Amino acid sequence: MTFTTRTPRVVAARRLQRRRDRDQSGRFLAEGPQAVREALAAGVVLELFGTEAALNRHGDLALEAPVVSPVDEEALAALTETVQPQGLVAVCEQVDVTLSAALAKGPRLVAVAAEIRDPGNAGTILRTADAAGAGVVIFAGDAVDPYNGKCVRASAGSLFHVDVVRTGLDVLDELRDYGLQTLATSGNGADDLDTLLDEGVLAGPTAWIFGSEAHGLPRDLLDGADRQVRVPIYGGAESLNLAAAAAVCLYASARAHR
Amino acid sequence: MTFTTRTPRVVAARRLQRRRDRDQSGRFLAEGPQAVREALAAGVVLELFGTEAALNRHGDLALEAPVVSPVDEEALAALTETVQPQGLVAVCEQVDVTLSAALAKGPRLVAVAAEIRDPGNAGTILRTADAAGAGVVIFAGDAVDPYNGKCVRASAGSLFHVDVVRTGLDVLDELRDYGLQTLATSGNGADDLDTLLDEGVLAGPTAWIFGSEAHGLPRDLLDGADRQVRVPIYGGAESLNLAAAAAVCLYASARAHR
Repeated sequence: MTFTTRTPRVVAARRLQRRRDRDQSGRFLAEGPQAVREALAAGVVLELFGTEAALNRHGDLALEAPVVSPVDEEALAALTETVQPQGLVAVCEQVDVTLSAALAKGPRLVAVAAEIRDPGNAGTILRTADAAGAGVVIFAGDAVDPYNGKCVRASAGSLFHVDVVRTGLDVLDELRDYGLQTLATSGNGADDLDTLLDEGVLAGPTAWIFGSEAHGLPRDLLDGADRQVRVPIYGGAESLNLAAAAAVCLYASARAHR
Repeated sequence: MTFTTRTPRVVAARRLQRRRDRDQSGRFLAEGPQAVREALAAGVVLELFGTEAALNRHGDLALEAPVVSPVDEEALAALTETVQPQGLVAVCEQVDVTLSAALAKGPRLVAVAAEIRDPGNAGTILRTADAAGAGVVIFAGDAVDPYNGKCVRASAGSLFHVDVVRTGLDVLDELRDYGLQTLATSGNGADDLDTLLDEGVLAGPTAWIFGSEAHGLPRDLLDGADRQVRVPIYGGAESLNLAAAAAVCLYASARAHR
């Protein structure tokens, strides 16, 4: 039996495109074979929807899923947001953990996204943090929902690799309690990234704190952090965009941690 | 007199949202006060359109523009692509130069965007290259039009700071003739970025070559470059996105060039 847009389970899954329904149910959607594979590896898939062609093409994924539900093309299109979803979308359990649970594992590199509203930026930070070896990404304050479809896609699977934490803005004390120095990024920061790297400051366990491109970091986080750090600008640009600045900072730490 | 959507000069300017018309006329549009300011500083503004309120608010920009044309809100909306264009849009002359002209200035850091189709990525590379001190950004092969509105906006003014070159894919010989080593980025590159930095390889004049996220670099460029370089991945991510990889590579060179 093939499900259609009117099948109740498809109707219910489709509602997960809305934040309110994700928050209430503790579930979200991951689309495309790459994300589905990572979600299966993380053990959080509840149900896999797919067109007949896609389920045949990705038989290995269909075998691993606890529930497999064939859908017609129209239902697949309704459940997905991209032009080329490649026929698969999974309903997943949300994966975030508490701040204490994440920090208790003793990560040496942490990324904090403070009040970041753009889902593409948030997903890119997840991906970059994962690549640089950060074990924890914290969405602090009034940040974007990490289970937003665009964020899930931009993370390219990294949402399932790192410990994701959703919490308030008052994270500094707990980060310090776990031995992490707190470095807040700011275009006017007193400390230059390259100098910190030269002086060995980045060798220690570090939490990088990034704010939104439009508004920067909230005052409390900026003033309360151990240091305010600027990425040096060598040319005529006023600043870097958020994803680029995060990549440069996280990779400077990764370099120091080798 | 206030121009409307039916005024011939507004109709003509609006056509510059299409690539064909930009290519034929050698002109493009820059919207918002920041881009207009940079375009004026670069001396390439031909005409400044603005609402009465915006022209009053940015009297300094209106004074500098060779021709100022007040438009009504509807005409402004037709000429711009963003939700908040802040009332200003300028018709500009295209700024690109030939490869030889750009290289003759002896840049020590160059970014090559090879067949990059996404205008947001292209604009971000312009901005990041500028921030890292690269004097030249080359759009090689079948790349996005650097004067595409989304690229202009993502560049955040850097389109007007660096030497922009549009040329074919066969750039390697000319880059070498001007004393630049050619480093092609690849997820499977034989050389690790951090090792090159440790060994002093990045201290010399360098052209970084970036391909599209979907397709990577064309074979000729990859095989023909002096080295194939990978950004190390320390965590579970498969790769970095293009903007993040470019930021890490260009800033590694900037660090070596200090």
